[in-house]
Amino acid sequence: MHHDLLLRNVRPMGGPATDLLIRGGRFAAFGPGQEAPGVPVEDGGGALAIPGLVEAHTHLDKSLWGMGWLPHPAGPSILDKIEAERALRATGAIDPARQSARLLVQALRMGTTHIRTHVDVDDVAGLDGLQGVLATRAAYAEAMDVEIVAFPQSGILTRPGVAALMEEAMRMGAEVVGGLDPCAIDRDPKGHLDVVFGLAERFGRPVDIHLHEGGTMGAFSLELILERTRALGMKGQITVSHAFCLGDPDAALVNPLLAAMAELDVAVATTAPASRPVPALAKLRALGIRVCAGSDGVRDSWNPYGTADMLERAMLVGLRNNFRRDEEMEMALHACTHGGASVLRLDDYGLAPGHIADLVLLGAETPAEAVAAHPPRRLVVKRGRVVARKGEALVEAP
Amino acid sequence: MHHDLLLRNVRPMGGPATDLLIRGGRFAAFGPGQEAPGVPVEDGGGALAIPGLVEAHTHLDKSLWGMGWLPHPAGPSILDKIEAERALRATGAIDPARQSARLLVQALRMGTTHIRTHVDVDDVAGLDGLQGVLATRAAYAEAMDVEIVAFPQSGILTRPGVAALMEEAMRMGAEVVGGLDPCAIDRDPKGHLDVVFGLAERFGRPVDIHLHEGGTMGAFSLELILERTRALGMKGQITVSHAFCLGDPDAALVNPLLAAMAELDVAVATTAPASRPVPALAKLRALGIRVCAGSDGVRDSWNPYGTADMLERAMLVGLRNNFRRDEEMEMALHACTHGGASVLRLDDYGLAPGHIADLVLLGAETPAEAVAAHPPRRLVVKRGRVVARKGEALVEAP
Repeated sequence: MHHDLLLRNVRPMGGPATDLLIRGGRFAAFGPGQEAPGVPVEDGGGALAIPGLVEAHTHLDKSLWGMGWLPHPAGPSILDKIEAERALRATGAIDPARQSARLLVQALRMGTTHIRTHVDVDDVAGLDGLQGVLATRAAYAEAMDVEIVAFPQSGILTRPGVAALMEEAMRMGAEVVGGLDPCAIDRDPKGHLDVVFGLAERFGRPVDIHLHEGGTMGAFSLELILERTRALGMKGQITVSHAFCLGDPDAALVNPLLAAMAELDVAVATTAPASRPVPALAKLRALGIRVCAGSDGVRDSWNPYGTADMLERAMLVGLRNNFRRDEEMEMALHACTHGGASVLRLDDYGLAPGHIADLVLLGAETPAEAVAAHPPRRLVVKRGRVVARKGEALVEAP
Repeated sequence: MHHDLLLRNVRPMGGPATDLLIRGGRFAAFGPGQEAPGVPVEDGGGALAIPGLVEAHTHLDKSLWGMGWLPHPAGPSILDKIEAERALRATGAIDPARQSARLLVQALRMGTTHIRTHVDVDDVAGLDGLQGVLATRAAYAEAMDVEIVAFPQSGILTRPGVAALMEEAMRMGAEVVGGLDPCAIDRDPKGHLDVVFGLAERFGRPVDIHLHEGGTMGAFSLELILERTRALGMKGQITVSHAFCLGDPDAALVNPLLAAMAELDVAVATTAPASRPVPALAKLRALGIRVCAGSDGVRDSWNPYGTADMLERAMLVGLRNNFRRDEEMEMALHACTHGGASVLRLDDYGLAPGHIADLVLLGAETPAEAVAAHPPRRLVVKRGRVVARKGEALVEAP
C-alpha cells in the first residue's frame, strides 16, 4: 500500500516553511505552493519536520509495557538480570506477540518508523520470542519496519541447544546474528564468536553483538570481533552494541580499537547510559565511525525506565556527551535518525525528493530544540500514511 | 487566600484509592467516602497523588523560555559560560521579570509548587534580576512559593561592587546567601567565603553555594566551607550545590568530607548531570545527608536543555545513580519532593492531614512508575487551589 499526501507549511530540519508532496509513499516534490488535486492535505502549521526516528537497539519481545507496574526483580549484575528474566519468562506471563505489538505501537506514536530489535533465543524462551515478533512484524508491516536480531541472551555454549536454535532463528527470518559478552557470559570468547561469526558467514548476514564488558576484558573481546571481521571480509557488516570499553579513560587502550573500527567500518549502537562509561559520540563520528542509538529494553526486567521515545533518547545522548551547541545536539539527533538508518542499511531514508516518506512533525523551532525539549509528536507519517496524530497512534495495540 | 476542595478517588503515593478533603488550603481528612456539602469536587479517576514537586536549584532570572531558540553561545568552560552570559545580558534582551514569570508558569504546569532560585547579582545585572524575580514572586504568590538566593554568578572579589550588591540583595528580600567556586572564579577562596559567610552571619540567613570544582580543589573548597560552618555554628543551614568533588572515585578524599557533612547537617543539591562526576545519592542518604534536586538553568545561555519538569529530573537522578529497584526510584523522587522541602525548610509539607495541600495527580500506578515515565500532569493543586489541569497552567504567563 502506497500513499499520496500533501503536507503544507512544514519546515524540514528547521529550514524555511514549505510544502512536501508525497506520491506513492515517497517524497515527490518539495517547495511552497504545491497543488495536487485529489491528494489528501495536512496543514503542518509551521511544524518542524524530521525524518522518522530509528530505534536501532531495543528488545520488543520482552517488554512489560501495558502489563501493570512490576517492581524491578533483579540484582545488580548482568548475570542477576539474566536469571531474573529467565524466572519471569518461565511464568509464561510475557506473550511476545502481544508485548512486541504494544511496544511497537508505543514507539510509533513517539515517531519511530524503523526498529532493530534483538529477540531472545535461549533454552527457556526457545523460539517463542521470535515467532511472536515475526507475527507482530507481519501485522504492523504497513506502519513500522522491523529488523530482527537473533539474540542469545543467556549465552550460547553454556546453554544446551542454543546454537541450533540460533541457526533455526536465522532460517525463520531473523536478519542479523546477535551475540553477547563473549568473555563474561559464555566464559569462552573464542567459542562464542566462532558460533556468531559462523552463522553470519553461513547465512550471509550482518552481526550485532552486545558488548557490556568494560576495560581490558571488553577491549580483548572487541579485538577478537575485529580480527574476525577482517578475516571474514565483513567490513561494514558489524555493529557493536553498548561498547562500554570504548568509554574507558585510557586512550592507549581505546584509540587503537577505534582506528580498527574506522578501518573496518564497524558501527556502534549506544543507549548513552548515565551511569556507565560510554564511547564519546563526537570522537566516533570524527573518525567516520557510524553510530546509532536505541532505547534498549523499555520497561522490562532489565530496565524499568523508558517510553520508547527516541527524541528523549537523543536528549540523553546529548546530556551524556555534554552536547550544548546546536551542531552537537544535531549529532545526537543524527544517531537517532540517519545514523540508525545507516546501520539498518535503509535505502532512500531521509527528507529528500525520491526518498521514502517517513517523517515526524513536532512543535520545535530547530532540530536542536527538538532534542532539548522532545515535545509531543503532532503527526507521524509512514510511507505517506498518517499513522499517529497529536501523540496518539492510529493503529491499535492489543 | 485559602481554598476548600474534595479530591475523590486518588491514590496517595500509590496506596489504595481514597478521598482527600482540603479545607482552608490544608489537608483536613483522608479516607474514602468523604462528604463536604458546598465544597468543589474533583474526580481523580484513580490517579496517583504525589506532593507538589520541589525545584530546589534553578535560575529563574535568566531563562530564555518563550524567547525563541537561541543557539548555544558559550565555549566549554565555566568561565566561557560566565562571559557569554554577561555579553547576552548586556544586550538587554532578557527581562528578568518576564522570563522568571514564564519559567515559573512552565514549572507550575509540570507540577512544581516550590522553587529555590539563584538570582544573579553581579556588575552587569546589578540587582535587576532580583527586582524582576521579586516582582514575579509577588505576582504569582498564590500559585508558587519562591525562595531567592542572592547569587554572585561572576564572582565577588574580582568584580567591583559585587559585595555591596550582595548585601543590598539580602536587604531587599533574598533569603539565602549564594556563592560560587571559591578557588576557581575569584581565585581567593578565603576572601570569597569570608564575604559569603559574613553576610550569612550578619543577616542570620542560610547559605547555598555552587561548587563545580572537582577533585582535590573542590575538596579543599568544601573543607573551607565545612570549617566555617562549624566555627559559626551554622549546622543545618548550608547547602552545597552540585558538589562534583563528592563524585570523585577516591574514597579517601570523599569519605571524610561526607562524614563532616553528616555531622554538620550540610545538604547537597544535585542536578545529576550525566557527563560529570556526581555525589552518589544512596550513599549520601545512608549517611543521613539531606539531598534535594533541581533543573539548574532551563534553556539559558548555560544549558539548552530542560522543560522545568522535576519528574523528568527524578528520572535523570535515577538514571545517573543506576537506580532500578522501586525503593531506589522512590529515593530519586524523594530528592524532588521531601528532600527539597527539607532544604527549603518547609513546614507541613507532604500528603498528610494538617499539612499544606500542595499536590500533583498523574497517570501512574506507583511513584516508581512516575519516575520511569514522567507522564503528563493531570492536576496540580497549590494550597487547595487547582493551578494546572491536563498539563495546562490555569495562571497566565507574560
